[in-house]
Amino acid sequence: MKKISILGSTGSIGTQTLDVVSHYPELFAVEGLAGGHNVELLAEQARAFKPKKVSVATKALADKLLADIPSGTEVFYGEEGLLEIAAATDADVVVTALVGSQGLKPTLAAVEAGKQIGLANKETLVSAGHLVTELASRRNVQLLPIDSEHSAIFQCLNGESKERIHNITLTASGGSFRDRTREELHGVTVQDALKHPNWSMGAKITIDSATMVNKGLEVIEAHWLFGLSYEQINVLIHPESIIHSFVEFVDHSIIAQLGMPDMRVPIQYALTYPDRMRTPSQRLSLAEVGRLHFREMDLDRYPCLRMAYESGRAGGSVPAVFNAANEVAVERFLKGEIGFLHIEDLIASVLDRHTAVKVPELQHILEIDRWARVAASGIRFTL
Amino acid sequence: MKKISILGSTGSIGTQTLDVVSHYPELFAVEGLAGGHNVELLAEQARAFKPKKVSVATKALADKLLADIPSGTEVFYGEEGLLEIAAATDADVVVTALVGSQGLKPTLAAVEAGKQIGLANKETLVSAGHLVTELASRRNVQLLPIDSEHSAIFQCLNGESKERIHNITLTASGGSFRDRTREELHGVTVQDALKHPNWSMGAKITIDSATMVNKGLEVIEAHWLFGLSYEQINVLIHPESIIHSFVEFVDHSIIAQLGMPDMRVPIQYALTYPDRMRTPSQRLSLAEVGRLHFREMDLDRYPCLRMAYESGRAGGSVPAVFNAANEVAVERFLKGEIGFLHIEDLIASVLDRHTAVKVPELQHILEIDRWARVAASGIRFTL
Repeated sequence: MKKISILGSTGSIGTQTLDVVSHYPELFAVEGLAGGHNVELLAEQARAFKPKKVSVATKALADKLLADIPSGTEVFYGEEGLLEIAAATDADVVVTALVGSQGLKPTLAAVEAGKQIGLANKETLVSAGHLVTELASRRNVQLLPIDSEHSAIFQCLNGESKERIHNITLTASGGSFRDRTREELHGVTVQDALKHPNWSMGAKITIDSATMVNKGLEVIEAHWLFGLSYEQINVLIHPESIIHSFVEFVDHSIIAQLGMPDMRVPIQYALTYPDRMRTPSQRLSLAEVGRLHFREMDLDRYPCLRMAYESGRAGGSVPAVFNAANEVAVERFLKGEIGFLHIEDLIASVLDRHTAVKVPELQHILEIDRWARVAASGIRFTL
Repeated sequence: MKKISILGSTGSIGTQTLDVVSHYPELFAVEGLAGGHNVELLAEQARAFKPKKVSVATKALADKLLADIPSGTEVFYGEEGLLEIAAATDADVVVTALVGSQGLKPTLAAVEAGKQIGLANKETLVSAGHLVTELASRRNVQLLPIDSEHSAIFQCLNGESKERIHNITLTASGGSFRDRTREELHGVTVQDALKHPNWSMGAKITIDSATMVNKGLEVIEAHWLFGLSYEQINVLIHPESIIHSFVEFVDHSIIAQLGMPDMRVPIQYALTYPDRMRTPSQRLSLAEVGRLHFREMDLDRYPCLRMAYESGRAGGSVPAVFNAANEVAVERFLKGEIGFLHIEDLIASVLDRHTAVKVPELQHILEIDRWARVAASGIRFTL
């Protein structure tokens, strides 16, 4: 029986993780669930999976939840609650599916507690890759990627040593605006941006796909997860999202992972690794798909990706600033405060004002993250 | 230093194996080379790689060769010569690159002698898969596939257990006539048939690609190499031959191997496994290729593939008959004795006359092989 805690259980990855768990009740038990504001869904999950501990965003929500769940379940809230679910249960694996840099502290706490990590919160590695990977190595904790691209690379490697890798390529669908020129991006609406062609995901990550920030975060995440230089990490446009990513080895042999878009496959792989078991996912028929397309990534079309590479290469505190500025920018775009193309302007402005710290401690990172958010909130644009 | 002997060193796979060896003189030494009738090339290879033993087809050729090679090199000929190179050298690995069922006895001898096998002679497993795999398992010998499709599957598996495989798919370019209907195959010439779109190979295998017999032999080979049922082995038309083959696991995740068509990559992998090293092969750029196409295999268009599946499922002596009949049919087509579409008629006729033996011993197989050849030579067609 593998015991699991989930940070962000009411989100897209969280609910799909519970779907995976529900198919193998004899293999998985749920120890802890942390949600945010969706108390109804969390209560339902608590009744179905009977975790020992649950957590929500605020005290008021915790009180509301208490009335609605089995009596044996302890209820926590806020940052303390997240840390409780991350580190203070009997879980073997913690799935970190929180959105944004709030995932950082609980993930570090889970690693410190020696939990294996099912990593869906890429911002953790982006903001504090040096701290997380160092701690994971010291605590002998494996970071099992849940992102479809990183799971693909992880599956392609399957134990091959880093020295045999020539490079890796993350594929990118191109997002909701992949067939528009930069000129055609002026004045696009939130509704347009939320229509992702292949994957059904949360709002934040869908916007990040359209700006290619998501791929940029994935590049930085891959740098830390697989210990590769930025020169070894490529991005390729592949509209069908069938090849999820691939590795080119030193002998020029390429190993790729393919499948229908279904996050339950990488989630389950992270939970059952190194084993594989049946999933309810649809099977891929290449004959039915008929053709796959590929084209060179254009960094002029997607300047956010260029900024991500530059931030990653600069290292230190810079990727945390890139990430925090983007989080605020996306929030402001979703609220209608700024236009779609202002997202990149805003990130660039904040990066521009930041003085990099070379090897920041956790406290630095959190301060810099706060500073970047304030800076990003204050910049005005004319719509 | 890995010591290598090559059966069929003057053929397409043999010369490419020596090309691989020549790039790593500090890693590989050549112990033995067996050629056929091309004495000039064999002499050149003997001078360049200084094997201890060489072998040619006949005594006359052996005498001719003796004058032309370093004095320390022993010269052998005929079947005895093949067995000498296969089993009576200090080689760690024997690359079996003979064409056709003549590869059977020397391969068994090499396995018996405990040599690792770089397997390029697929007819060995087709005719005597039960004997070869049983002996290899008993002698603790690994059969390392050199065929690009089987090497692809082997690389995709990379240690994954058979129980996790849902199925495998061998890709097929479709051969020189892939864009012709069956009606358009009447009266095609030998020259037309020899124009393979993607791979530069020997004449026999190029014709086998056009008839899809080659893929049929690969299906039977895969059955033995990977221990899969015929229901688990699919064939998919993929004109670009970029995806060399792939494995679908039980979780519906697919792992594929890709690359430019260059046999030196699978050859070198078999020689360096489980390590990988640089190759002089061209790198694949999917952005440059731009698109990949796939379509369902049509067994009515390629009846030889259907016969191969049926022969494989029937098992016992039947695949050996399929293979022997095809070898004669291709020879007769290349000599202009029969038309292209007579190849399938001839195989079907010989299969029809054969009474299957369930678990044939080596002696049976060789007798049945001879019978099938005589039968296939005797059938007349009007051109």
